[in-house]
Amino acid sequence: MSKAPWVAVHVSSAEPGRRVGASDIVDALAQQIRGGHVPHGARLPPVRVLERRLGISKNTVQAAYDELVARGLVVSREREGVFVAVPQGDPAPQRRALHATPVTWAAPLVVSEPLRGLFDLGNVFIDPQLLPRERLAECHRAVLRDGGPMPFYDAQGYPPLRAAIAERLRGRGIEAEADDIVVTVGSQHALDLVARAMAGRVVATEDPGYRYVVPLLRSFGHRVVGLPLDPFGGIDLEGWARILERERPALVYATTSFHNPTGYSYTSHEIAALVELSARLGCALMEDDWGSDMLSGSEYRPSLRATGGRGVLYLNSFTKKLLPSLRLGFVLADAAAIPALVGAKRASVLGGNLVSEMALCEFLERGYYDTHLATLQVELDARYQACLDVLRASMPASVRWTTPGGGPTLWLDLPRSVDLAALRGRMANRGIAIEAGASNFLGEPTLHGFRIGYARHPIDALARALDALAGEIGAML
Amino acid sequence: MSKAPWVAVHVSSAEPGRRVGASDIVDALAQQIRGGHVPHGARLPPVRVLERRLGISKNTVQAAYDELVARGLVVSREREGVFVAVPQGDPAPQRRALHATPVTWAAPLVVSEPLRGLFDLGNVFIDPQLLPRERLAECHRAVLRDGGPMPFYDAQGYPPLRAAIAERLRGRGIEAEADDIVVTVGSQHALDLVARAMAGRVVATEDPGYRYVVPLLRSFGHRVVGLPLDPFGGIDLEGWARILERERPALVYATTSFHNPTGYSYTSHEIAALVELSARLGCALMEDDWGSDMLSGSEYRPSLRATGGRGVLYLNSFTKKLLPSLRLGFVLADAAAIPALVGAKRASVLGGNLVSEMALCEFLERGYYDTHLATLQVELDARYQACLDVLRASMPASVRWTTPGGGPTLWLDLPRSVDLAALRGRMANRGIAIEAGASNFLGEPTLHGFRIGYARHPIDALARALDALAGEIGAML
Repeated sequence: MSKAPWVAVHVSSAEPGRRVGASDIVDALAQQIRGGHVPHGARLPPVRVLERRLGISKNTVQAAYDELVARGLVVSREREGVFVAVPQGDPAPQRRALHATPVTWAAPLVVSEPLRGLFDLGNVFIDPQLLPRERLAECHRAVLRDGGPMPFYDAQGYPPLRAAIAERLRGRGIEAEADDIVVTVGSQHALDLVARAMAGRVVATEDPGYRYVVPLLRSFGHRVVGLPLDPFGGIDLEGWARILERERPALVYATTSFHNPTGYSYTSHEIAALVELSARLGCALMEDDWGSDMLSGSEYRPSLRATGGRGVLYLNSFTKKLLPSLRLGFVLADAAAIPALVGAKRASVLGGNLVSEMALCEFLERGYYDTHLATLQVELDARYQACLDVLRASMPASVRWTTPGGGPTLWLDLPRSVDLAALRGRMANRGIAIEAGASNFLGEPTLHGFRIGYARHPIDALARALDALAGEIGAML
Repeated sequence: MSKAPWVAVHVSSAEPGRRVGASDIVDALAQQIRGGHVPHGARLPPVRVLERRLGISKNTVQAAYDELVARGLVVSREREGVFVAVPQGDPAPQRRALHATPVTWAAPLVVSEPLRGLFDLGNVFIDPQLLPRERLAECHRAVLRDGGPMPFYDAQGYPPLRAAIAERLRGRGIEAEADDIVVTVGSQHALDLVARAMAGRVVATEDPGYRYVVPLLRSFGHRVVGLPLDPFGGIDLEGWARILERERPALVYATTSFHNPTGYSYTSHEIAALVELSARLGCALMEDDWGSDMLSGSEYRPSLRATGGRGVLYLNSFTKKLLPSLRLGFVLADAAAIPALVGAKRASVLGGNLVSEMALCEFLERGYYDTHLATLQVELDARYQACLDVLRASMPASVRWTTPGGGPTLWLDLPRSVDLAALRGRMANRGIAIEAGASNFLGEPTLHGFRIGYARHPIDALARALDALAGEIGAML
């Protein structure tokens, strides 16, 4: 396009609802030009544009422009367009540089440290080689085959997907109906909906804990209370009761299987005790069950939801086990909670990605997910055992670690004499990143270590990295 | 599975980091059984489960269970498992019914009224028949063909997609680089990120305005200030200046093309004036440009971003024009804003759907989007003209409407004497839904009408519905 940009002008009919006439255009433009609202030299909208915009004939617009030319307010230049006249003696129009005030931002909620190509020893994701990418692609192609993607979304989530998820949950002893489920953009988004929709403003959660929940809760003005978790000693239930009695949080958020970052799994007794505390003290419960189906033979792991009933919120996702980039998770609530949760989802994203929801539904219905989990569990078990073997063979005697039994991550705890920042620097020099474990704590860290992820890397690569770590720790003791 | 569920137990080594021995298991279980932490009659974890979980040999676990049998604390039943013994005289174990306290929810942020199968006259979406579903399916298949979906996401958005979006924006006179863009789950999510990341807590926006922004802003504790918009008279800039001076919002959110729900488009003068107010009063600007590329010949519509510079936030999405269920939008900011926005995105959803982002990128790079927009604009123009024709031919003289010039929606305004609720009832009886226009206002409605959507329905169906509406309004005057 070689023509000049044109400016927008405002024209309306003198009589409400009636068709705009030529005189309306003349009056409006004359007023805007004289008032300086349209700059000298500016190009006016082409005739065809005003014609379409106002729903009037080309002749009407042309008549108006002719009149404005006659009045000396505009000039028409062939093949260029219609321009606001520049009065004699008026300097060439100069665009005054205007700069809007930029937004003032709060401190970033999440600062992520780039790994700069290091081997990431704390990574909690599963090795992409273990994920069923080909079968997921097949399911995408199957749902896209007939007529292409569906145009609209269901704000609560694709109903057959919700039904398939509910059926899986019932198979694991968890009461669930399709209507009790809201599909989310991963389980982080499930946390977002609950944090947005709940009435209370105090949330308690394990300390250390899942790192990204804290900035999320704080973005909604929630106060976060820590429940100290010692993965080597189990939960101090009396201590937790004292904290809950004092702080009276509206909600307790707990990761009951393979707690992140420690790998700790709640015992049946701890789960029952937490439900009892919820009933007695009026703190609601939200269970994050990202991990239980990563462990073979764990179909019947006890859960807060199965123990505490339908009032317990239950989160899970397909991110880790299936494909991170799919961004699909869900929250299981009960009928009474659904309007608040769907209202929160509309406020947050309006609705979800229907293509992905349909492809996941296809994947579940074909039985691919069960087959995949069975294979995955065997491989994760092998990696876990290999990780323990290396730790036992190589770590100095004063180093301890949790034994989660499977899943993706354990906690390695070092003697206080080891400077963790210095260790991080030494490891980085060897091309290996270890996490700043302190970021998992709300306040002063009660443990002295970091997460080891054994799901992300092949056994031999993991073993080499752990050997290197053991060597550096040994050198620092 | 015919076997009983088993309970979780907690076992750790007496010596930190050392392998668990049989005596550790015996001591831990004996203590938990005697302390009532594991109920009588409960099934203990199978040997293979403890073996894997603790990373020890089968024999060690078996030895521990044998010892517990010998102590009378557990019983082993062939082909059933190992169970906590039930003492003589102990009644059959009864599971105490425990019910956790359910969450207390705030009032739902968004209450959506189901349309119960009515013809939806206010619908702002585009007719699915006009959307390029087949070509989108092709692009999905193309990105899925080689090796299936990618495993991970880029929290800021797929880099080549950001580059393709930036290139399109530059072609429309808007300065943009891939690094200035954050991809979002539709433009609602872009609003969410800004609302979450900004430091200030007062936002001004048009009244009436886009309905879903208000609950979103309020969920982060923002106060919302209305800027009255009369789509028949244009913007009262002096009135807005007085409000902005008094309220000093941190941000002004404005939909400058085809404002929703009125169809109003800002003039060049109004855009320049708003930028000037931003510079003078320190209110930042956020422009929602959902509409400008729905209008043919609008490549050069002025925008706040082009006028006010890189500090202005610019939102757009592919929801309406391409496919709602794709859920892809973006916010264009500048380098200084990116850490805050990406941090907010991580807090909200961690990252986006990479499969969809890649498919959209393919769609843009193949040039499909430009071809599609050109076709779409012609059809939308035709529907707009047809809508105006029917309104002129059928509406009583006291009814007025805006003339947006294209896009998806105009505002129909009625004499105050018409009871809108009664009209809604009459129309529902005829199978047609009209919107409750009052929900678009922050307070007392300053207009008396509702949105008419002409993009969603074929011309003949729309004409019949508008004729019916005109008949009912006529009967009520």
